[in-house]
Amino acid sequence: MTTGTTVGDSAAADRIRRAAIEAFAESGYAGSSTRQITKRLNMSATAMYPHFRSKEDLLYAIALDGHRAVLAALRDADDPASPVLDRLTSVVSAFATWQAEFHQLARVVQYELAALTPVHYRTITAMRRDTVAVVAAIVQAGKDSGEFSVDDVDDVVLAISSLCVDVCRWFPSKIHDDPRRLGAAYGRIAQRLVR
Amino acid sequence: MTTGTTVGDSAAADRIRRAAIEAFAESGYAGSSTRQITKRLNMSATAMYPHFRSKEDLLYAIALDGHRAVLAALRDADDPASPVLDRLTSVVSAFATWQAEFHQLARVVQYELAALTPVHYRTITAMRRDTVAVVAAIVQAGKDSGEFSVDDVDDVVLAISSLCVDVCRWFPSKIHDDPRRLGAAYGRIAQRLVR
Repeated sequence: MTTGTTVGDSAAADRIRRAAIEAFAESGYAGSSTRQITKRLNMSATAMYPHFRSKEDLLYAIALDGHRAVLAALRDADDPASPVLDRLTSVVSAFATWQAEFHQLARVVQYELAALTPVHYRTITAMRRDTVAVVAAIVQAGKDSGEFSVDDVDDVVLAISSLCVDVCRWFPSKIHDDPRRLGAAYGRIAQRLVR
Repeated sequence: MTTGTTVGDSAAADRIRRAAIEAFAESGYAGSSTRQITKRLNMSATAMYPHFRSKEDLLYAIALDGHRAVLAALRDADDPASPVLDRLTSVVSAFATWQAEFHQLARVVQYELAALTPVHYRTITAMRRDTVAVVAAIVQAGKDSGEFSVDDVDDVVLAISSLCVDVCRWFPSKIHDDPRRLGAAYGRIAQRLVR
């Protein structure tokens, strides 16, 4: 899993992050202790502290890492020189594919944000705004050029973002278990939302 | 809040359910003890047992109650004698409005299902299938009559259900804080998905 780099960036920090993602995904943030997390690695709780000062610090590192990775995936998928419908399709596909591929990480990132300190929370919500802004810029560009038929840009952008984020809740299902195929289907859904 | 009736149906049981929804919403299911829940009501943990045998029993009662209420809201909103686009609009509006109005309950219901026993989980997933089936029947009817232009019924139904369910994660937001106005916006989004 390559989701970018963050604070506490070392092989040990990476192992702790992965163990924490598993623990939070299974028992929730409030239901997991740093001891339970380090125990998964046969590590003492004190061995974590050089890398992460607290459980909240660990959650923040995971959230930062996840949000950076999503934002990078969307920006990589967007070629501003392409026709606007292709841009939308490509970005939405990348968004949905990422949420499917990293659904366990994404769930932690989505559902445990309220546990962050106010300062950390503000940093993460700024990254979320940047992520939504990638989609919003494309929808607005399509509306401005007359290629998209959109009455309310905010509502269409909300629908697209919400659809992609929610993938991590249900993926995989009986119908969808291939992240790329899901991404393609969601690209077509997004096209319907703007035409 | 009227969300229907369930097991442990009395004023005391209802108060315990509400306290549990608040506790689970704040600290997660794994992060809340029955003692913490009853303490919110100045009640001893043993006073809960005539109503709910365990924390899982309480979660099941909440999930059953929530899923019954959603299903009833969708069925109430659907008039099979109406034109199929009106049916879709009405059902999706009701679905999104419910998720917005009862977002705290809905979050518990959506995110803590994995904590149910296998038997309880199966009962709840059957109710979820019935809920999705209300939407699916309308999309299929519109496709069959040629009024909807839908290539893949499953993907459109997935998108509509996912959009509505995800409302509880983010509602309220800066743009949307009125459940009925949100419902109307989502009705229009659903129309875009089938035309």
